[in-house]
Amino acid sequence: MTPFTSLRSQSVLAQGEQRLIADIRRWLGNASPQSPFGIGDDCAVIPATKYHQLVTTDPVIFGRHFDATVPPRAVGAKLLKRNLSDIAAMGGKPVAAVVALALAPETSVAWLRGFYLGLADCARLYGVKIVGGDITQGPAGFVGAFLTLHGESTGRRVVTRTGAKLNDRIFVSGRLGGSRTGHHYKFTPRLKEGVWLARQPGVVAMMDVSDGIAKDVQALTTKGLVASVRPSLIPVSAAAQAASRKSGQPAWVQALTEGEDYELLFVLRAKVDPVDFTRRWARRFATPLSLIGNFARSLGPGDVNWKKLHGYEHLR
Amino acid sequence: MTPFTSLRSQSVLAQGEQRLIADIRRWLGNASPQSPFGIGDDCAVIPATKYHQLVTTDPVIFGRHFDATVPPRAVGAKLLKRNLSDIAAMGGKPVAAVVALALAPETSVAWLRGFYLGLADCARLYGVKIVGGDITQGPAGFVGAFLTLHGESTGRRVVTRTGAKLNDRIFVSGRLGGSRTGHHYKFTPRLKEGVWLARQPGVVAMMDVSDGIAKDVQALTTKGLVASVRPSLIPVSAAAQAASRKSGQPAWVQALTEGEDYELLFVLRAKVDPVDFTRRWARRFATPLSLIGNFARSLGPGDVNWKKLHGYEHLR
Repeated sequence: MTPFTSLRSQSVLAQGEQRLIADIRRWLGNASPQSPFGIGDDCAVIPATKYHQLVTTDPVIFGRHFDATVPPRAVGAKLLKRNLSDIAAMGGKPVAAVVALALAPETSVAWLRGFYLGLADCARLYGVKIVGGDITQGPAGFVGAFLTLHGESTGRRVVTRTGAKLNDRIFVSGRLGGSRTGHHYKFTPRLKEGVWLARQPGVVAMMDVSDGIAKDVQALTTKGLVASVRPSLIPVSAAAQAASRKSGQPAWVQALTEGEDYELLFVLRAKVDPVDFTRRWARRFATPLSLIGNFARSLGPGDVNWKKLHGYEHLR
Repeated sequence: MTPFTSLRSQSVLAQGEQRLIADIRRWLGNASPQSPFGIGDDCAVIPATKYHQLVTTDPVIFGRHFDATVPPRAVGAKLLKRNLSDIAAMGGKPVAAVVALALAPETSVAWLRGFYLGLADCARLYGVKIVGGDITQGPAGFVGAFLTLHGESTGRRVVTRTGAKLNDRIFVSGRLGGSRTGHHYKFTPRLKEGVWLARQPGVVAMMDVSDGIAKDVQALTTKGLVASVRPSLIPVSAAAQAASRKSGQPAWVQALTEGEDYELLFVLRAKVDPVDFTRRWARRFATPLSLIGNFARSLGPGDVNWKKLHGYEHLR
């Protein structure tokens, strides 16, 4: 469904700001708390958290993060899930979100309704309250929604991207690749897995895979070390396998470079038994877990050569 | 200064994402904390607050909130100050911010540098840390910066927009109008004033004036009441006076409808002596304070007729 309408009467411009805000409250329903703690004041008010606060911001923009083939409900859900994946990567739990919209005057109210219903459903599913936002006019052809998600750590410890040492092992959840065939909006943020991982003292660094492991693994790599990853250990999705048969590119290259996997990539201390660790994971989660390599002083023969691969670039 | 360049080599596209993020860290300097608590992880980490958290989000978009006549440093400062004004309106103090950018490929690095230097200066002035963000490509001709500001209340009480009763008085800080001649980015957010007002038990409702009092006062008006405001009591800025001489429109109409005043509009209980209150204000602040009216059951002769005035509409 296209976000735009050629009928002025069905556009956000004809609806006007006041009625649109009333619509949004109705579409969100109980996913938005009542004023003064919800939409409608100068600031949203959120109770103080027990531990550290976590904050992340990620948008969805028409032509960039979605197009007319993605149902509007899925766009609303994707906006929240992108941000949930960041909270998962710190082992946190989500709390509340604000949404700033920039909309072309010809944006259709029907599209926006679908977007908010999808956002609200997703917010209820993950226990997030939509507490505020802003709406402003954007240029013709533009639809952008900018969400900032607030969460809190589930303990005193927050797992960051730094901390990998020599011989520490590299794990990834799920299967990689296939975002272009629909995974980019059908994924599940790994929140439960993230909380559990943050409680394991052997898990010393973590991030979510948003631009492809080829780019993202560099952020986990401590200076002086390299990520020694074996192509045969990469968990390749069925969609990436299929794309590989078409393109002739190896499936593992597809899986490492496509981006928008939204899986957890993390580092386990070398001294922790990886077999026992994987067994403990499998008792809790249906999500696959793969050991794909370790940090070394230099690449071995047969290791992935990162210099030949590129992840997703946000400006190109 | 235009945000765009016709020289590809001086554009954000040529600079590329990785170098641009390194630039941004440098431009922000000590306005951004060191990782893991600053830019560069999946989430920003902020210590838990003592009282309620306050959250607000407001963007600046080229052609909407600024144009090529506004210096880029002033655009960066305006982005933060718009949000600071919302924190002021709840009597809060600001803590940390995240910034999501959507930039046309031809956005100039020089413009973006000015924007971030202005943002950083303003952040240091008000004790705000820029803790994270996102950067994504927007369509040609588009520059949008979406900031979400986190603050905390300075006491157990948060002053919202609701609570006005019959005969309660309406006050406004500063002088109104003149935003088009430069006030829209030269204003000072009323943070100290907001904190003091939130501590006065007689101040029962408050907001900042962003769309013009003609529109904004309705949000403070309890159902069944009307805002009875006398035109002669409106504090009109010199710029609005000058604009009035040109347009022939009364200066007070200009002052009530232009928007982007970023002054505090608040409600004082009828039982509090307004003269004594104004004296206590004047001992603390150089900012003018004006009593402009009160809440009544119906409009009196000579009162501002709100139905004939319109504030700023965000979709038009």
